[in-house]
Amino acid sequence: MQTDRNRILVESIRRLLRRGATTHLGKIVNKTHAADLSVVFRSLSLSQQRRLFDMIKDIEQKGVLFSELDKDTFLDLIEGMKVEDLVEILERMPTDDVADLLGRLPEEKAQTILDKMKKDDSAEVEHLLRYEDDTAGGIMVPDFIALSEHVTAREAIESLQKEHLDVEMPFYLYVVDEYGKLVGVSSLRQLVVVPPETPLKDFMTTDVFSVQTDMDQEEVAKIVARYDILAVPVVDDAHRLVGIVTVDDVIDIFRREATEDILKMAGVGDEFVETKSVLKSSRIRLPWLFASCMGGIIAFFIIGKFESSLSRIAYLAAFIPVIMGMGGNIGTQSSTIVVRGLATGRLNVRDIWSVVFKELSIGLILGLVYGLLIGSVAHFRYSMYALGLSVALAVVCSMSVAALVGSLVPMGFARINIDPAVATGPLVTTAIDIISVFSYFMIATTLLGI
Amino acid sequence: MQTDRNRILVESIRRLLRRGATTHLGKIVNKTHAADLSVVFRSLSLSQQRRLFDMIKDIEQKGVLFSELDKDTFLDLIEGMKVEDLVEILERMPTDDVADLLGRLPEEKAQTILDKMKKDDSAEVEHLLRYEDDTAGGIMVPDFIALSEHVTAREAIESLQKEHLDVEMPFYLYVVDEYGKLVGVSSLRQLVVVPPETPLKDFMTTDVFSVQTDMDQEEVAKIVARYDILAVPVVDDAHRLVGIVTVDDVIDIFRREATEDILKMAGVGDEFVETKSVLKSSRIRLPWLFASCMGGIIAFFIIGKFESSLSRIAYLAAFIPVIMGMGGNIGTQSSTIVVRGLATGRLNVRDIWSVVFKELSIGLILGLVYGLLIGSVAHFRYSMYALGLSVALAVVCSMSVAALVGSLVPMGFARINIDPAVATGPLVTTAIDIISVFSYFMIATTLLGI
Repeated sequence: MQTDRNRILVESIRRLLRRGATTHLGKIVNKTHAADLSVVFRSLSLSQQRRLFDMIKDIEQKGVLFSELDKDTFLDLIEGMKVEDLVEILERMPTDDVADLLGRLPEEKAQTILDKMKKDDSAEVEHLLRYEDDTAGGIMVPDFIALSEHVTAREAIESLQKEHLDVEMPFYLYVVDEYGKLVGVSSLRQLVVVPPETPLKDFMTTDVFSVQTDMDQEEVAKIVARYDILAVPVVDDAHRLVGIVTVDDVIDIFRREATEDILKMAGVGDEFVETKSVLKSSRIRLPWLFASCMGGIIAFFIIGKFESSLSRIAYLAAFIPVIMGMGGNIGTQSSTIVVRGLATGRLNVRDIWSVVFKELSIGLILGLVYGLLIGSVAHFRYSMYALGLSVALAVVCSMSVAALVGSLVPMGFARINIDPAVATGPLVTTAIDIISVFSYFMIATTLLGI
Repeated sequence: MQTDRNRILVESIRRLLRRGATTHLGKIVNKTHAADLSVVFRSLSLSQQRRLFDMIKDIEQKGVLFSELDKDTFLDLIEGMKVEDLVEILERMPTDDVADLLGRLPEEKAQTILDKMKKDDSAEVEHLLRYEDDTAGGIMVPDFIALSEHVTAREAIESLQKEHLDVEMPFYLYVVDEYGKLVGVSSLRQLVVVPPETPLKDFMTTDVFSVQTDMDQEEVAKIVARYDILAVPVVDDAHRLVGIVTVDDVIDIFRREATEDILKMAGVGDEFVETKSVLKSSRIRLPWLFASCMGGIIAFFIIGKFESSLSRIAYLAAFIPVIMGMGGNIGTQSSTIVVRGLATGRLNVRDIWSVVFKELSIGLILGLVYGLLIGSVAHFRYSMYALGLSVALAVVCSMSVAALVGSLVPMGFARINIDPAVATGPLVTTAIDIISVFSYFMIATTLLGI
């Protein structure tokens, strides 16, 4: 439904662009939510994007569009725009989004823009730029409502009517002491419910979840999700309130991290490349296949060593695919469970040995089941007991080693703080391929005495 | 950090349980957030879970814990609990969570519980149970604030002080006409900012995003994420407001859907099985490996057909792993990009041909690069021009077919409304294995004239 609507929008905008129906186009563009326009932009050429962008009248809408665009699309679009126009748009945007966008630009250009911005705004942005991108500090908004604990509900409401009009998420009111330290939280809801003269300290919650500026964004997201809150306050080393992370950013973090994990595991980088050109996509995907290529070449040299056995019993080769396939598939199962389990908190990196042992047991059980099945087929086809047994044993060996490697590698990487998703995919698959082929030929040549 | 804290919590609770330090344990349990307790529960035995559960004094905390537990843990825990105690807890929980929990129980037991609940509550729950689990109706909460457009800001605030005290997300005030149809929305923030005597119709937003009760939950989640809203109103066929879907549920949907997609693609069902026993996990993973097993057996019969060629040139077998591996890996890349692209809305199912064509081009380019590389290694090793060429061609063929199949299959399934994630993983891998092996032997036997 949602996608259908966008599809219709894209098609009508394209048609109107071809026809040059500027008036009609202008009407549609200015009626459409910037989030939907960003989807349309993905399907347009750069010159079409520029024409459409110039038609947007509302400067705030231009800002929302900026923050919704892919990095490359954004950079292409602003190439050649006047700095003054850019600054005008950025000044109407939330500070955290501005910091994100400027972080994408070459340092020199970012500095030129900062110099032209209003002092207050640029100071806030520069402050945010100091934090690492993927930490609480890097994703927080510095706009929040902080009041003293002696303020009454009535005074708090009055202050909302005069100040804080640009606060993005005005549902929580944070209470700070004279040093700016976070001491409590209250909600807009509570303000209107209590008698007007009650001071905040009488009805605020003192048990506030807060995070430090350097906490990893995924951890921050997990806290917001776990406690079902709409925003979490961010504090500095001295527990002074410096910003908040809002739930809409948390959703983006989860979606982006899930996409990153999925793509990394498949060996296609960590960004969605489908919108890039064929050549660009090929370049990104090329190196990830190299592990698999090297693995294949190693397997080829291993099999080469068994050439004389192969020339005596040629049908040995017929079982290579099934043994590799079974190992590869159970290895993918194990590593996927581990990577996703670690990401969602279902598995803990400290439980490494119990998880690996469990996977090994599962690999052994499933290996016995499929080893028996595939070994029987081999025996039935060639009526050779030793061949059937070799194949069965090779399947058991390949599947249990695969489950072991598939769980141990990502667990081990997570333990030494390397992203387990990167380590999985191609690396694990390749290792399993080599081990499977080698153990198969060792078992078969030994049992068949060739 | 977060996981460390939980780890410490789990360890101290286990230690105290062993020591039987009931008083101390009771203090910890009643100080810990139910969301954290649910993590602890995962690592405890059933009898330990029961002991801990009985120590919780706050009935609402028991309710939060219920909704955080895994399905199996929940069912085990309430086995043998008195219906009266259960009802007491359920009555303090949000209606949508109650409906979720009752949906997990056998119908008879659910009915017994509904009969014992307060009339109002059970009517609301029964109403929710009528909607499909994974639709807007199934995940909405029926508690929201709906006011007439003639109500003034002051009256609205007064009504908040008297009624609607149990509303979960009191940040949006929905405005309905005399028939209960949704006509506008306002926020608590606006209420306190406008002059008190202003009627809602003068400051409400009439351009409200809303969803129908039967909309798929993923679509609902995408709308909330796209427009950065905290809740979306749900309307029935007659556009009457019947509930809202809140942002905390949206986060859960995204996380669950991402996990489901990842697990399905790896062929491990659609639920996280790691917390289940070894035998249970093995049973769930067994059937998903069957496709790969059948594919392997087919490949084995295909290679069997070329037995006479193999016995003449045994080292033909040495290239099977690298050709299968390259095809398998690029196939995984393509299908992952398609599945995740469709899930995040980056790809549209109607663009099937342009996506598949692009993937085929990438497969061809990468196939040429790696074909040249692997073909050269083959030529260098055996000094046979025809063998090098065969291997190179087989790599090109395997990689381009794999990119084609890997993108076409999930796109095609999505087109006919079958979940593309299920169709991917084992099915695509197996198809690619068979095609790779077959085309390799066809090319090699033709070019080498054997």
